[in-house]
Amino acid sequence: MSAFQLDERLGRDSDLLVRLGLCQLRLMNDGRWPWLILVPERADMSELYDLPMLDQQALTIEVNMVAAALRTITGAEKINVGALGNIVRQLHIHVVARKTGDANWPGPVWGFGTAEPYDDQSRAALTSKLLEALSA
Amino acid sequence: MSAFQLDERLGRDSDLLVRLGLCQLRLMNDGRWPWLILVPERADMSELYDLPMLDQQALTIEVNMVAAALRTITGAEKINVGALGNIVRQLHIHVVARKTGDANWPGPVWGFGTAEPYDDQSRAALTSKLLEALSA
Repeated sequence: MSAFQLDERLGRDSDLLVRLGLCQLRLMNDGRWPWLILVPERADMSELYDLPMLDQQALTIEVNMVAAALRTITGAEKINVGALGNIVRQLHIHVVARKTGDANWPGPVWGFGTAEPYDDQSRAALTSKLLEALSA
Repeated sequence: MSAFQLDERLGRDSDLLVRLGLCQLRLMNDGRWPWLILVPERADMSELYDLPMLDQQALTIEVNMVAAALRTITGAEKINVGALGNIVRQLHIHVVARKTGDANWPGPVWGFGTAEPYDDQSRAALTSKLLEALSA
């Protein structure tokens, strides 16, 4: 069994915010939507059901905690949660805040247009609000 | 608290295959991809985190059971799991079998093109393989 190593593309497209119990919580560098990913720090996982049962339960808790915090701080209409992995096979779960009129609403965020990187100030503001909400 | 009633659009777009412990397991009437949805039979739920904790655990188990069965019977490269709800707010979880070269690969299935309804024979064949795999 190999050790966990973050997929290169996930590392390039997102920044680590905090380590939760199971997952790295990372911010996608795309200011079009508040878009987080959770990456379980387990090697060789691709499908949700590849995770051992206890990890599945931890993941459920972490995803829901992050989704609730993201909705609170953004006032989003809807949180989109997805585990796709058609391009990057390392298991990762998207948690995205959506609202009427955002880019590609009501369609999905995946595969739509081109990422628009954050400026430092916007990223810092979002990050600090999120970490505060998660620790509340 | 109101009683669970299936959203009209979900009812129109999909057919009930079986009731699991928590969810209705339904087949989307779109033969472009083997595409299932799970609808927790709970009233007034929109986000995953709206579910009581025990229901969240049941949902995790049911989604993973269905995803594994779907992958087995289709030989898919990747299962896509998503809870979006931008259009239909009643909580429902998509479980879709994907492979290289399918419609919109490697992009998402949501919002892409127009549904292509099954013929009776194809639907019956898929349904019976799936139910067999789920009861194995």
